[in-house]
Amino acid sequence: MSAPDLSRCSLNTATVKHASLTEAVEAAAGAGLGAVGLWRHQVQEAGAEKAARIVSDAGLRVSSLCRGGFLTATDDAGIAAALEDNRRAIEEAATVGTRELVFVVGGLPAVSAPGQGPRPDAGPQDRDIVATRARVADRLADLAPVAAEHDVRIVLEPLHPMFAADRAVISTLGQALDLAAPFAPETVGVVVDTYHVWWDPALEESIARAGREGRIASYQVCDWVLPLAAEPLNSRGHVGDGYVDFPTISRWVAAAGYAGDVETEIFNEEIWAADPRRTAETVGARYAAHVLPHL
Amino acid sequence: MSAPDLSRCSLNTATVKHASLTEAVEAAAGAGLGAVGLWRHQVQEAGAEKAARIVSDAGLRVSSLCRGGFLTATDDAGIAAALEDNRRAIEEAATVGTRELVFVVGGLPAVSAPGQGPRPDAGPQDRDIVATRARVADRLADLAPVAAEHDVRIVLEPLHPMFAADRAVISTLGQALDLAAPFAPETVGVVVDTYHVWWDPALEESIARAGREGRIASYQVCDWVLPLAAEPLNSRGHVGDGYVDFPTISRWVAAAGYAGDVETEIFNEEIWAADPRRTAETVGARYAAHVLPHL
Repeated sequence: MSAPDLSRCSLNTATVKHASLTEAVEAAAGAGLGAVGLWRHQVQEAGAEKAARIVSDAGLRVSSLCRGGFLTATDDAGIAAALEDNRRAIEEAATVGTRELVFVVGGLPAVSAPGQGPRPDAGPQDRDIVATRARVADRLADLAPVAAEHDVRIVLEPLHPMFAADRAVISTLGQALDLAAPFAPETVGVVVDTYHVWWDPALEESIARAGREGRIASYQVCDWVLPLAAEPLNSRGHVGDGYVDFPTISRWVAAAGYAGDVETEIFNEEIWAADPRRTAETVGARYAAHVLPHL
Repeated sequence: MSAPDLSRCSLNTATVKHASLTEAVEAAAGAGLGAVGLWRHQVQEAGAEKAARIVSDAGLRVSSLCRGGFLTATDDAGIAAALEDNRRAIEEAATVGTRELVFVVGGLPAVSAPGQGPRPDAGPQDRDIVATRARVADRLADLAPVAAEHDVRIVLEPLHPMFAADRAVISTLGQALDLAAPFAPETVGVVVDTYHVWWDPALEESIARAGREGRIASYQVCDWVLPLAAEPLNSRGHVGDGYVDFPTISRWVAAAGYAGDVETEIFNEEIWAADPRRTAETVGARYAAHVLPHL
């Protein structure tokens, strides 16, 4: 029996959070994977050009860069800061060698800053999610020309509705596609992340639409496991350990014409404590078992 | 300044979980509310006819009965048991004096039983959410004639997608309306529960549709607060303590023609520990402040 083809399997480096960029790249290459997904803080630490070399010297590609976004500020200074930071992110993506810059758009504005939950004693909060979403659309219009100029794609990530208040007011793939609609598909795309969208009754239809519209920029996989972790953000599991129907969703993504990398991005304290090389091997094995046969 | 009209404000007794039925009814009446929402275990303990008297003697109405559902079993015995239990629930609703029987439809079948999460070492799990939803539709077809015969309405409750794996494979109001569509609106309706649907980008449109189709059977209010509790089910907050935009959603519900009771249903350990009379007063005050002016 020949070894499975892991060339489209990518390790998002957040899955091996405590590894250096070099260690993460070595783990991915050692496990036979074809690509890595990077995070800006790593790229900034190494310098974008050097980060690009570390990846290409190992024979890998960069499947995406995480992340831009956080576009929901209401005040001029907050808006200016968000635009400036996202312009830098677009340049970093171009330099590090990926077209796909993942955007997490931010939550309700009064709580975008960490640790600032709304409390009855903290005065009025901005709860207007409709207006917040409209501001996201406005900021995309500001940034799309910058992305186009650098040949980078803004990749909208719908987050699970559990994170709608504090992380991302984009909660479904259909909504992400509506926000992307005014822009060229080369400039604004979407990511299908199983953790965030597996529950969506409109998922099959939205994936097909994303394919028709040429907007699937990334397919990210990890599993929904229960119980939720104390920090719900870190509740994700290895593919196959939870409730997600990977064969079905992978078939939908393939039927939509997606032929790019499949990134595994897991936030999980236990997995972060493991040896990055073992984690990369597990990522490859689970991809081969649950995803690859259905692509 | 005259006292606010709390006649449409209903206390769901789960909000005062540790109170007896009599104590809960006294608390609601004492706070000037117009109705209570009941749970089956309480109704069964008292007997449905006596429960009905306890409520009506206090001058209150029963706004709804919680809950039927859990319809996702795959095996004949599980299906028969679910049908039998729901037939009893329909009879109890009729006897206790409400037309509105709330259904929580159940999660992926291998994990419907408490404490039985899927584990890689526990063998194959049923992860087919598409087929699970189809079974819900089949069971509704079985039960709708029974509900119609008793002049009771099956009220489908979309639960927050956070609960899609283990509690309810209905995650959006639009999906609930699709499942209700084959049946008369007097027989199968939907509940708009702010906690579960506040994040939905299609919410305004789905509420309007629910109104047009005559299916809004209940409007339930409680707030999304963060951080999530260790048991996420018990993370809900009093209206006004969290992120939900009650004025906007209440206006949408009113514009859809809903003129029925507004139930407050909160699962929260801290609120359960409070004096039920104070809790009922808070429910009334928050309703008067955040909901009533927009109805």
